[in-house]
Amino acid sequence: MSAVEQRLASLGITLPSPVAPAANYVPFVRSGSLLVISGQLCFGADGKLAATHKGKVGGTVSMDDAKAAARLCAINVLAQVKLAIGDLDKIARCIRLGGFINAMPDYEPLAQVMNGASDLMVEALGDKGRHARSTVGVIVPMAAAVEVEGMFEIAG
Amino acid sequence: MSAVEQRLASLGITLPSPVAPAANYVPFVRSGSLLVISGQLCFGADGKLAATHKGKVGGTVSMDDAKAAARLCAINVLAQVKLAIGDLDKIARCIRLGGFINAMPDYEPLAQVMNGASDLMVEALGDKGRHARSTVGVIVPMAAAVEVEGMFEIAG
Amino acid sequence: MSAVEQRLASLGITLPSPVAPAANYVPFVRSGSLLVISGQLCFGADGKLAATHKGKVGGTVSMDDAKAAARLCAINVLAQVKLAIGDLDKIARCIRLGGFINAMPDYEPLAQVMNGASDLMVEALGDKGRHARSTVGVIVPMAAAVEVEGMFEIAG
Repeated sequence: MSAVEQRLASLGITLPSPVAPAANYVPFVRSGSLLVISGQLCFGADGKLAATHKGKVGGTVSMDDAKAAARLCAINVLAQVKLAIGDLDKIARCIRLGGFINAMPDYEPLAQVMNGASDLMVEALGDKGRHARSTVGVIVPMAAAVEVEGMFEIAG
Repeated sequence: MSAVEQRLASLGITLPSPVAPAANYVPFVRSGSLLVISGQLCFGADGKLAATHKGKVGGTVSMDDAKAAARLCAINVLAQVKLAIGDLDKIARCIRLGGFINAMPDYEPLAQVMNGASDLMVEALGDKGRHARSTVGVIVPMAAAVEVEGMFEIAG
Repeated sequence: MSAVEQRLASLGITLPSPVAPAANYVPFVRSGSLLVISGQLCFGADGKLAATHKGKVGGTVSMDDAKAAARLCAINVLAQVKLAIGDLDKIARCIRLGGFINAMPDYEPLAQVMNGASDLMVEALGDKGRHARSTVGVIVPMAAAVEVEGMFEIAG
């Protein structure tokens, strides 16, 4: 087990085995040292969207639930990285996360919601998890509360 | 004619000759093997937005029209790639597409709309067309139904 | 003083000294020749959001104010580049800007707003400032009128 997965295990997190989308896109593409991860929704370990993670943040979804949803997205991003490169210890850096929050039009604290994803990335990867980030409020597929995409630098 | 353009021709698609934006940005930038394509709207072969490709998806724009609009965006992305590198056979991989759907706030099937772009990319490029993807609902310039941006790896 | 900063000075622009976010993300990450800048809000030189740069573009925020806000975002992007690489003359190219406009649902001239950022980039960097670009309307953190992210190629 990689050091990163041991750290995740100590946080009580087991990476899910993500299912590839049944479509003409793929969950990740590697180009040289760059690894691009498709936008991941806040599916739980059971592969489902919890009722508390569906809907508009600032409307029916609370800040705390939205933050937890962002954390799930980050876990799902890491699960895709593992599928792509096998060993999470090969991550040289999380370069960027893009955070898409399914927010009410007047919702302001989007950054706090996205911290749920950023915190997980640093808990898992340490300083290699410190990333550039853009966070915006949008409409997310399937009415999921949060979607997160990623870009990583892979060593070797 | 490149193999990719022959495949497009067999689908009845001729790439448009895109006009560069009259502004301080450009339709594409290459950096090493990376080629970044600016967000492309769903202009038709005549360079115009059809009435059916203007407005909110899930509102006045139907799923089928939106999917066709996403396909047009992908065609326009490829037209810019051709302008950038001359020969579409030099594409090593479509790394990523970003899909921006001009959707109603409660519209859920955004992924199905974006499949119109993803399908075109694979029809044109085969396995090299399988890309990472993020899809969100937003407000699109000029009230276009769909905007798609791209990132490609170029060989040689 | 770098040539780029002399050009900015001649435009009456002094780059602010940006404060790093108090969170687990960072304002920039470099990976090889790529430099990725986190989404920057339209804070003024005093580090604050002016009342005229807060709210929905096409609602309480006018086109002119929104364009000025986009320009501020671009200045803040350059300030982060300076923090990252020290000398702005090392910029080989502004590869891409992502423009996020806090717009009313039916606001169409998003591109014109984003020109405020694109124009600044070319005023500062000349032809190296000509970038690929995607512009969309979204909900921006803190109700800022505009957010701009960047990707640059760094020489040497």
